[in-house]
Amino acid sequence: MVGQGADAEAPVASRRKSRQGPYNPDVEGISRRRLLGWLGAAGLGAAAGASGVGLAGGNATAESSGGEIVPFHGTHQAGIATSQQTHVLFAALDVADASLREIHGLLGYWTESASRMTQGRPGSNRQSGPRGMPWDTGEAVGLGPNRLTLTFGVGPGLFLKDDADRFGLAMRRPAPLIDLPPFRTDRLDPARSGGDLCIQACADDPQVAFHGIRELLRLSFGHVKVRWMQAGFLPQTAGGATPRNLLGFKDGTHNLRGTDAAALRRFVWVGSEGPSWMRGGTYLVARRITMRIDKWDGSSLHEQETTIGRNKSSGAPLGGRREHDPVNPSAIPRSAHISVAGPASNGGERILRRGYSFNDGTDGQGGIDAGLFFMAYQRDPVRQFVAIQNRLSTHDALNEYISHTGSAIFAMFPGVQPGGSFGRGLL
Amino acid sequence: MVGQGADAEAPVASRRKSRQGPYNPDVEGISRRRLLGWLGAAGLGAAAGASGVGLAGGNATAESSGGEIVPFHGTHQAGIATSQQTHVLFAALDVADASLREIHGLLGYWTESASRMTQGRPGSNRQSGPRGMPWDTGEAVGLGPNRLTLTFGVGPGLFLKDDADRFGLAMRRPAPLIDLPPFRTDRLDPARSGGDLCIQACADDPQVAFHGIRELLRLSFGHVKVRWMQAGFLPQTAGGATPRNLLGFKDGTHNLRGTDAAALRRFVWVGSEGPSWMRGGTYLVARRITMRIDKWDGSSLHEQETTIGRNKSSGAPLGGRREHDPVNPSAIPRSAHISVAGPASNGGERILRRGYSFNDGTDGQGGIDAGLFFMAYQRDPVRQFVAIQNRLSTHDALNEYISHTGSAIFAMFPGVQPGGSFGRGLL
Repeated sequence: MVGQGADAEAPVASRRKSRQGPYNPDVEGISRRRLLGWLGAAGLGAAAGASGVGLAGGNATAESSGGEIVPFHGTHQAGIATSQQTHVLFAALDVADASLREIHGLLGYWTESASRMTQGRPGSNRQSGPRGMPWDTGEAVGLGPNRLTLTFGVGPGLFLKDDADRFGLAMRRPAPLIDLPPFRTDRLDPARSGGDLCIQACADDPQVAFHGIRELLRLSFGHVKVRWMQAGFLPQTAGGATPRNLLGFKDGTHNLRGTDAAALRRFVWVGSEGPSWMRGGTYLVARRITMRIDKWDGSSLHEQETTIGRNKSSGAPLGGRREHDPVNPSAIPRSAHISVAGPASNGGERILRRGYSFNDGTDGQGGIDAGLFFMAYQRDPVRQFVAIQNRLSTHDALNEYISHTGSAIFAMFPGVQPGGSFGRGLL
Repeated sequence: MVGQGADAEAPVASRRKSRQGPYNPDVEGISRRRLLGWLGAAGLGAAAGASGVGLAGGNATAESSGGEIVPFHGTHQAGIATSQQTHVLFAALDVADASLREIHGLLGYWTESASRMTQGRPGSNRQSGPRGMPWDTGEAVGLGPNRLTLTFGVGPGLFLKDDADRFGLAMRRPAPLIDLPPFRTDRLDPARSGGDLCIQACADDPQVAFHGIRELLRLSFGHVKVRWMQAGFLPQTAGGATPRNLLGFKDGTHNLRGTDAAALRRFVWVGSEGPSWMRGGTYLVARRITMRIDKWDGSSLHEQETTIGRNKSSGAPLGGRREHDPVNPSAIPRSAHISVAGPASNGGERILRRGYSFNDGTDGQGGIDAGLFFMAYQRDPVRQFVAIQNRLSTHDALNEYISHTGSAIFAMFPGVQPGGSFGRGLL
């Protein structure tokens, strides 16, 4: 399964660049080369050999909070149908300097390390960690798992990049992992788009999510580079209330439910139509949707409600009285967001939305750079996201107030069982 | 107190620019000019006329969480000695197009709106809100106050900017509100430094903090521009445990306590030495400290512990056994961070630190742009922050792993009583 000789095909320019970082890679006698050698040798062996070691020092019992654990192993990856945690940190990575064998080792290490961290344990342990280095970067010691999930996938660039088949995988690219077409509302920033690999970290504490990504990157140094990252948040609502997005509207009223196994089978999980390494997996389309906060905040309540198609306060569809009342098409403008986005306008197609608000500071023009980090999970992006977004980008009244500033697509692996590793069957 | 004619002195270029935003300011019949006229007329009148109005729609009782309120009125502003909430959003603003009279009106509106939002009520109400516009942007409806604090101050630019005395205030600039000198570790980004005004929003929910800033900016449109913003987070630790920063070390073990009134009087609150409008106020130095995550994560545990001067796991000073053990100077390298930063090395001077971790995505070179957003409150920046930072920037072993990438200083107003307004006595 490991492509012999793929290493030699890595572009020379990118390999050289990755060795010219701003920092001296040899610190205090720990050579990065030794470290990478350790990593290359680790892979599944380390996973099998991992044993339970408590948190590196610290008194976890006395200090921990947020003790709830989301199970890591299973038919599907956690973090997709999982009820949304309050924070996300999403990292899109490019392979900078690694052979297919090393990527294989990396995914084995990530699988094992993620299985540990999602239980509130450190990222590596006495058995697997390199000598002299801390077992763990430490910022999550004592915090508890906080429902941490770490979810992994691969992007089109792993299969074909700049027309180069770097790893001999081009023929194995699944058809649904398309290059997304341009849409009318795109204002895409290449620095916020694409990626060869991705890790989605979700947790109820932002420092726990940060630690999950950072710890996986720590021992991947030199092999992968962060292409872009997006942090996001959801408010803590009580009693299952639908959270509001930064337009101030309830968002997700009619989303697929993570507990609706039949709907997930139909709309989300890849079935027998896919290659074996994708069965039980799914496709993620991630879009960074920037809101024109100034313009939206200068509009009237009437304009906002007819743009969305809902009452701002109650969340009821226009013409209805309560949030979950059925949508009455004749009471809602045809260009309203919920008219255009709903299944009735899209041949019954639905997607599993996992959206988070983001706020990245100033837009450089005196306003706020904020919006919705929209993650949509689906079985077939062509039939689902692309079809829906084609309608939205042409007809949605909300387009006056938003633009898409980042975009990426990933094939998200199916779940693993204990001892398994992501990417088996592909790499 | 209102400088007549100051309006005419506003630089023409900046005034013109602020009217050429990318978005049409006239939306659905609500003219921005009318809006600004409303704001100009509001000021303290609106504050006095404000009456209690419940959350705009929504069932606050059924949906709210995070009900704890930090009192808004008092001798000192909330958000300084207040026990740190888990999230901060800090906004540094420039005055773009406003007379002194309009800034006065703005601060009156902000005072009144902040007093409402910190109690979980909307940003404006039926009495004070403009017709047709929502009372509130809405994203915090139903969330509860979440210990929201909104804390206000003015920067050097309000007094003198590019050698121009725009508002006739140059002679009233307090001596401690210095232009910070350069330090050896500075790698300052002008786009992340400075500011004429500031608002610090802290809350236990990031969406509540965001809403506080956004709602205050909504009706200030055109008058002020966001110069920079910084979001930050702290982990939720149980039982008063000291939180860890992104170096993985416990941070804040020996910080001043917000309950130690005598120490705050000595080190933080401006006393009779200050002008009347600053007595009970304080000075904030905000520094964005970027950590070289890759380099730190490549260093050994021994290197990390001798750099900081503490045991990474327990937080004990080297040579000690427990976090709060006294520091034994002979057991700690002289260049260790806690040796150089401690009061013993700085003539007994101390500052009230209110630090938050930040994570702003990729550094553009394949790494992570993360670190510490360091806010230090003090009575006299010359004697306190500048003296301490001069020592640190020369002697601290930690300098190998950090650089200061943003910097600002603000005079933070004293607290207000009901009916009062920030900036009285100055504007």
